[in-house]
Amino acid sequence: MTAQTKLSNKNKEKKFVCVGLDTDIEILPKHILKLENPVLEFNKQIIENTAEYAAAYKLNFAFYEKDGDKGMQNLFQTVKLIPKDILIIADAKRGDIGNTAKMYAKEIFDFFNFDSVTLNPYMGKDSLDPFLSYHDKLNFILTLTSNQGALDFEKLKCEDGSFLFQKVIDKVSSWNLVKNCGLVFGATQLEDLKENLDRTDQMPLLIPGVGAQGGSFKDIVELLKTKPDKNYIVNVSRGIIYKSKEVDFAVAAKSEIIKYNKTFSEVLF
Amino acid sequence: MTAQTKLSNKNKEKKFVCVGLDTDIEILPKHILKLENPVLEFNKQIIENTAEYAAAYKLNFAFYEKDGDKGMQNLFQTVKLIPKDILIIADAKRGDIGNTAKMYAKEIFDFFNFDSVTLNPYMGKDSLDPFLSYHDKLNFILTLTSNQGALDFEKLKCEDGSFLFQKVIDKVSSWNLVKNCGLVFGATQLEDLKENLDRTDQMPLLIPGVGAQGGSFKDIVELLKTKPDKNYIVNVSRGIIYKSKEVDFAVAAKSEIIKYNKTFSEVLF
Repeated sequence: MTAQTKLSNKNKEKKFVCVGLDTDIEILPKHILKLENPVLEFNKQIIENTAEYAAAYKLNFAFYEKDGDKGMQNLFQTVKLIPKDILIIADAKRGDIGNTAKMYAKEIFDFFNFDSVTLNPYMGKDSLDPFLSYHDKLNFILTLTSNQGALDFEKLKCEDGSFLFQKVIDKVSSWNLVKNCGLVFGATQLEDLKENLDRTDQMPLLIPGVGAQGGSFKDIVELLKTKPDKNYIVNVSRGIIYKSKEVDFAVAAKSEIIKYNKTFSEVLF
Repeated sequence: MTAQTKLSNKNKEKKFVCVGLDTDIEILPKHILKLENPVLEFNKQIIENTAEYAAAYKLNFAFYEKDGDKGMQNLFQTVKLIPKDILIIADAKRGDIGNTAKMYAKEIFDFFNFDSVTLNPYMGKDSLDPFLSYHDKLNFILTLTSNQGALDFEKLKCEDGSFLFQKVIDKVSSWNLVKNCGLVFGATQLEDLKENLDRTDQMPLLIPGVGAQGGSFKDIVELLKTKPDKNYIVNVSRGIIYKSKEVDFAVAAKSEIIKYNKTFSEVLF
């Protein structure tokens, strides 16, 4: 099944929550730390308890790479634990020259078997081409991110009066020939998202920044309700996986994602 | 020894070549492939034959990550093989929100023990802060890269008439409070480097793109000669490590780096 189909199927089933598996061994529940591989066991229980309700899973590479080869094994094993009809996103924010980008694309799509990736546009089209050559995958390109630093460059005004992030949206739109591009748009930037929603054309959105970073799930759903054909996912990491840091963490994660889905239903119907 | 000291020491010894260990198992000499760990053995022989002449080594993460946990082990072991007085750069081009950037910084500086890293500025200052908090390390931030795609965003004109990459130089300069910032400037962009050399202030330069990518080592040395106090390194990857793809690869690499150093001496004296 293509990445595009996985996403649109889940959206049709009214599922919009992407669970961010930002699993950090330093803040896992104590009872889990006693097990042989705490990170993998934690992920396994989270997945088992949330898969029925999730639209996607996102694994931020930083949390796994920091543990070296052990972390890479956990990344690999976690991807295998996720049901095949759910979109799996490598939150890697890569971007490098063609030669090297090709290696990253092979790593993420062929070795680890991800459906989707996040990419950094700074170095331009040829740095993303090796990813774009995978037609059945989804490439989410950073546009306007949820952090304060977005003001430094992303919101710089260009010569023609538009912002850099708007230039990124327009360029990516022109590269989206086989519908394998999406955009990352921070949940804390909803005013900008509202103003630029038409500009994002048919491209699906990955919206991080809800919860710990301050974005509101309800506001996003209200806004996207105006575009019923738009595919999108809202990422929640800490708000779901660390809802409880006790023995009941997985059940708490389940209740939380159900709560998000309920918020969605209330706004939509 | 701090990263800054390592670099300036080598520059004082008239060493300016950074050897790029872009080791790709698919194009290694045949006799090496028969060994138990071809990538590590290849790196070992290259390092043994070039360390006397090199100013730095740069490991592009893409070439190692694509081999999963085995690749991460090779990255780790390769760093250990490099003499401690030589700057070791993690060419990772990272950039992520603070929380996550912190993990990447820990991975690169604490776990792998690199002296230096390449970073992507798109997400702004707070995405780089966790790296900048390491005062004894060197953070090379992408400005104008050597690829064609540099035209897409890096050379976009801003409202005040300057290019985006010039905005990056100015911002990074303002973040360089403890002299732990450097800039990546592609060797194919020498006209721009010339025009912006004063703008780069005291920041050291990492200049990739020589050889396979078309930049000329001699032209760079001619240009930088005008700034005798500037610390810089010119990266050569394929041009050195794959100079020969036969049994004599390591000796060929040695001859080649000596040739680069000779070019340097000829221009400079």
